[in-house]
Amino acid sequence: MKNSIGQMFTITSFGESHGRCVGITIDGCPAGLALTESDVQKQVDRRRPGNIPGTTARAEGDKVEIISGIFNGRTTGAPLTMVVWNQDTDSGAYQKIRMTPRPGHADYTALVKSGGFNDFRGGGRFSGRITVGFVMAGAVARKVLDFIGIEILAHTVEIAGIQAERTTLKELKKNVEVSPLKCADTVAALEMMRAIETAQSEGDSVGGVIEGLAFNVPVGLGEPVFDTLEGELAKAIFAIPAVKGVEFGAGFAAARKRGSENNDAFAIKNGKIVTLTDNAGGILGGISDGMPIVLRAAVKPPPSISRSQKTIDLQKLANADLEIRGRHDACIVPRAVPIVESMMAVTLCDFAIRARIIPEVLK
Amino acid sequence: MKNSIGQMFTITSFGESHGRCVGITIDGCPAGLALTESDVQKQVDRRRPGNIPGTTARAEGDKVEIISGIFNGRTTGAPLTMVVWNQDTDSGAYQKIRMTPRPGHADYTALVKSGGFNDFRGGGRFSGRITVGFVMAGAVARKVLDFIGIEILAHTVEIAGIQAERTTLKELKKNVEVSPLKCADTVAALEMMRAIETAQSEGDSVGGVIEGLAFNVPVGLGEPVFDTLEGELAKAIFAIPAVKGVEFGAGFAAARKRGSENNDAFAIKNGKIVTLTDNAGGILGGISDGMPIVLRAAVKPPPSISRSQKTIDLQKLANADLEIRGRHDACIVPRAVPIVESMMAVTLCDFAIRARIIPEVLK
Amino acid sequence: MKNSIGQMFTITSFGESHGRCVGITIDGCPAGLALTESDVQKQVDRRRPGNIPGTTARAEGDKVEIISGIFNGRTTGAPLTMVVWNQDTDSGAYQKIRMTPRPGHADYTALVKSGGFNDFRGGGRFSGRITVGFVMAGAVARKVLDFIGIEILAHTVEIAGIQAERTTLKELKKNVEVSPLKCADTVAALEMMRAIETAQSEGDSVGGVIEGLAFNVPVGLGEPVFDTLEGELAKAIFAIPAVKGVEFGAGFAAARKRGSENNDAFAIKNGKIVTLTDNAGGILGGISDGMPIVLRAAVKPPPSISRSQKTIDLQKLANADLEIRGRHDACIVPRAVPIVESMMAVTLCDFAIRARIIPEVLK
Amino acid sequence: MKNSIGQMFTITSFGESHGRCVGITIDGCPAGLALTESDVQKQVDRRRPGNIPGTTARAEGDKVEIISGIFNGRTTGAPLTMVVWNQDTDSGAYQKIRMTPRPGHADYTALVKSGGFNDFRGGGRFSGRITVGFVMAGAVARKVLDFIGIEILAHTVEIAGIQAERTTLKELKKNVEVSPLKCADTVAALEMMRAIETAQSEGDSVGGVIEGLAFNVPVGLGEPVFDTLEGELAKAIFAIPAVKGVEFGAGFAAARKRGSENNDAFAIKNGKIVTLTDNAGGILGGISDGMPIVLRAAVKPPPSISRSQKTIDLQKLANADLEIRGRHDACIVPRAVPIVESMMAVTLCDFAIRARIIPEVLK
Repeated sequence: MKNSIGQMFTITSFGESHGRCVGITIDGCPAGLALTESDVQKQVDRRRPGNIPGTTARAEGDKVEIISGIFNGRTTGAPLTMVVWNQDTDSGAYQKIRMTPRPGHADYTALVKSGGFNDFRGGGRFSGRITVGFVMAGAVARKVLDFIGIEILAHTVEIAGIQAERTTLKELKKNVEVSPLKCADTVAALEMMRAIETAQSEGDSVGGVIEGLAFNVPVGLGEPVFDTLEGELAKAIFAIPAVKGVEFGAGFAAARKRGSENNDAFAIKNGKIVTLTDNAGGILGGISDGMPIVLRAAVKPPPSISRSQKTIDLQKLANADLEIRGRHDACIVPRAVPIVESMMAVTLCDFAIRARIIPEVLK
Repeated sequence: MKNSIGQMFTITSFGESHGRCVGITIDGCPAGLALTESDVQKQVDRRRPGNIPGTTARAEGDKVEIISGIFNGRTTGAPLTMVVWNQDTDSGAYQKIRMTPRPGHADYTALVKSGGFNDFRGGGRFSGRITVGFVMAGAVARKVLDFIGIEILAHTVEIAGIQAERTTLKELKKNVEVSPLKCADTVAALEMMRAIETAQSEGDSVGGVIEGLAFNVPVGLGEPVFDTLEGELAKAIFAIPAVKGVEFGAGFAAARKRGSENNDAFAIKNGKIVTLTDNAGGILGGISDGMPIVLRAAVKPPPSISRSQKTIDLQKLANADLEIRGRHDACIVPRAVPIVESMMAVTLCDFAIRARIIPEVLK
Repeated sequence: MKNSIGQMFTITSFGESHGRCVGITIDGCPAGLALTESDVQKQVDRRRPGNIPGTTARAEGDKVEIISGIFNGRTTGAPLTMVVWNQDTDSGAYQKIRMTPRPGHADYTALVKSGGFNDFRGGGRFSGRITVGFVMAGAVARKVLDFIGIEILAHTVEIAGIQAERTTLKELKKNVEVSPLKCADTVAALEMMRAIETAQSEGDSVGGVIEGLAFNVPVGLGEPVFDTLEGELAKAIFAIPAVKGVEFGAGFAAARKRGSENNDAFAIKNGKIVTLTDNAGGILGGISDGMPIVLRAAVKPPPSISRSQKTIDLQKLANADLEIRGRHDACIVPRAVPIVESMMAVTLCDFAIRARIIPEVLK
Repeated sequence: MKNSIGQMFTITSFGESHGRCVGITIDGCPAGLALTESDVQKQVDRRRPGNIPGTTARAEGDKVEIISGIFNGRTTGAPLTMVVWNQDTDSGAYQKIRMTPRPGHADYTALVKSGGFNDFRGGGRFSGRITVGFVMAGAVARKVLDFIGIEILAHTVEIAGIQAERTTLKELKKNVEVSPLKCADTVAALEMMRAIETAQSEGDSVGGVIEGLAFNVPVGLGEPVFDTLEGELAKAIFAIPAVKGVEFGAGFAAARKRGSENNDAFAIKNGKIVTLTDNAGGILGGISDGMPIVLRAAVKPPPSISRSQKTIDLQKLANADLEIRGRHDACIVPRAVPIVESMMAVTLCDFAIRARIIPEVLK
């Protein structure tokens, strides 16, 4: 199973949900970047359940440790390995349901692929917890992107079918960080909360849509014809468990538009080349066009629900009923927001290095 | 610009729309596969405008030539290079509009990325014509997949907002191949045709949605956490010009479902493990689960339209108007159908080799 | 700096000599391999100075920890991360000589490449200590190769110009493991020891040559024209600090032979196809031919010597004299023997997977 | 079989000795490089037998064609594909000896690896003719390296055991190009010629050693710990058929030196940092140190000889005698000289891009 992504800024993921740790190694990080564990911790903390409605109670006091690649508070250009040691892990429950794969989870596919040798506790390699590593890598990538002014921001645009209204960028930035649901539309957010609580009370779960934005991306990132900006961003985003769709700019809505509506007219504005709309999501021909990168990721409802479900018993090869006990996230959309940002950052950082915009040493 | 995809079954694209040729090299094709130029030609011909409404008149008598990797009618395991030589290429028009980038096209980004050295004639590397190479590679991949029984089929599910009704698989297969729009719903197809003709008569264009299906995929293809089946398929599909969104199974609709609705219950059916629904699109945890792979790609309306458009003059750095003369495809959805199939085939073939399901030599 | 090697059995190295740890992540190890920390420890211990004459006194109580990829004593197919935490590290001395790069070391090149941000303590990323990670990976690769019967053995064939006589394979195996110099010729080994001691007493150091052998390699490993067996093995061996030459079979001596002498005649022996000599070192056309793989690596004398040396002062940009205090290895050849074995094992394991000889799951 | 090398300047080889063509695709060549077919032709012509003693009579009027990646006489950044069409190919002889593999050739290994489907005519993929593609790629790489002043030069230092004396660099450059044996020592060259002729008259062949040099290489190329400059150069050189050993600087001789002799003292000379000797071959810690890169490749005697040889009959599985008719190269060392230069150029170009020393667009 291949666990690396990125050609020049390469991240390798390791670890399991209930194993000793989850971790990430970054190979290709420029030397000279000022970096502390608390820089990374700050991003990891944004991913914690905290007071997000509908999230589990597991107290993940995830403490980031940088175990290689740092010297005197700066990156050295050597591989940067970061780990979070696992603690509060109650594995008992998983043995029992081992042979009755949970619908919507990777239990069955992981078991078949590994010949039954997979670490199934807490989902093992397929747990959302693996994304702690993504966020650690993203924290570093964002600091690198700071050098060329690229800014990344993701937010919740839909939960349980309730869509957020568009706001100004200023308001977006202000609202998202304080919103427990990472949603800039405070009115919609209240409705979303109620929908989550309702689902939870009914032993069920809900999904949603996250929008990822990148600003100040220079023209020229992306490597057609196969390593397109869309293709690599999509691949990176699909690595986030529960994502089942990715679109750019107008995305699926573009399929319903006329060419005359969908084409983004070029114009000169304040001496700069811009497009008057951004249906392309900042990407033309697989290459950034200087406008904001806009992508949206569809997040399915968490498959762990309290309701009884139909499954099979793999030992008896017979139909079976399954009840998953314990507390479950009724909605993971808000927690996935910083993960979307992280995978965007890692991908853009890779492309910026490939385009030689970021040097080997940052000074 | 990186022009290879696939780790073990690797394809490398080369050529330009109005250069000498478009071509593809496959590295990693198993030895012993019976293969003739007409096997490949057959797939390439499916991509031709032919009698598809709303497609250009350029008579692309694309004749496939295999120039390496074949001996006595079989693959040798050596790189397989296939080319189609360009002929009917009227390049004159492009020089004139060189400095007024066409909205929705890669003209501007390609120019910036290449420092102005790009071959802009007919879109150069960014032309849809490059996908002839994808289809040639796909033709070979499909023959390899035949050995393990994997079957791939794509079809048009939406054009200009008109959606096709679901049909049985049997009807799907029967109708798609004879439909000029590659649409199984013959009633909807008529409406789609009218919508294309209307758009064309108004100097405009329309987009649509293609669904790609893969049957008999064994459990276990896909390499989490980064080389997921969704991620690699999406990357491959986004290499097709005009694709702006990719989703799997229920996709974006999953974001609006409850977990209890979206989870696919496992069951034993005729002694086999199946899921009763396929909201996951045949992929759980980034790994194939044995159900049909289902993806949908959003295709934007072709950006070349006859209407006057707003753009800029790059030399004067001033706003400008642009009229693109000549005949344009008013809808490329049907032509993209075999290309979606091709990129799916190439990706699945790569994963099947990675999983050691396909040996070095086919016998 | 790129720190991964192998396409399907990929190892990623991290850590520094005086940082928190040295480690390795294996991505692509088949699931189901029985593996304990002591399996790996056993190989790491072989690399320790111990009673090898002319090696440093640093008490490296390197304790192997597997921190991911293992469950119930078996590999899971997930990335396998192993670390050894650093302890006995006296870093003080390095700060002083920071600006007077040691001849023959990577001090100068590492400093320039990293813009001065490198962890220079103990050589940092360029220390021989990094090869602990290579040996950990090799320990796993060897266990995988066991499944297909491939056996790997390296030994010292020359130190300080003293060459070992050829012995029988049986004697070779018996003698090497008990020889402190890993040399099968016990008479030559005594002379080598004296040469090492003389050099050491004179504040100097000596080099040598290691031969690596692989037995029972099936015909067909290697991927011409670029990923040849020779090319990939050489690349892997050159990753070992101090190696300055790699040859296969007759190697440089082949350049002095006639074709009629150098060609290995084929013959049938006991019903099997063999060659009567092995000047090719078991590799024809970059592909294993079924005979033992034979390579030799030239190991330069350790650059750390007690004698005064000429160097420069990087701050004053002036010539300077340098005396390196402390105890140094006068000869690292014996310690490099298990490292050569490890890099051979890792490379052959990768090729065996690429040839689909090793499945995803070992049973 | 994997036929690509290089991470950012990637070349993919295709074609067969007696197939339709031999070719190469370069992916990652910067845009804006002035390049004509005759630039490439010039290098390819250097590889021709011409008046080199002991080379075959096959009139290879290899005419280079660039079929993609060029526009208006400059590279575009798109993949650059170059082919040479095969003509004068007498394949008849090969069918007869198909089942009696030639000692020292890849006949046997190629047959086993491809399951018997390989194109065996003229050695197919394993013919020296494949290196025409290497030279075409090298011609482009050298032009790119010109931009940063890197100069590459290879020459014959030994044939049939006769060693050339060292000369000044000035004399070296002057003599090599006019020497039919590419040897700067004109006296030794005469002796070498006689040795070749003697071998040829006796139906035999001889090998030799080529030295490759690179000047003006900036400090900092190479990516430890695995993608070292030595490792990648060695891998590239081992792709040349008949190479069985590669060493850097003092190489195997370093194994016989004391540390005090082998260490290259640093010094300031004309305000620049240099080393007083170059036993390291310009590489410390896997990274270029600013001194000339020096490598030597051992070239085995060509395995095709007129003398009767012992082999096996693969159909009868019995011992057999083999006589290879036709004219053979008695020594390929001089022809391999430009190929060594080419593989060095390709590798250094790749590293220069990885180090961001060469931009995406050359102006």
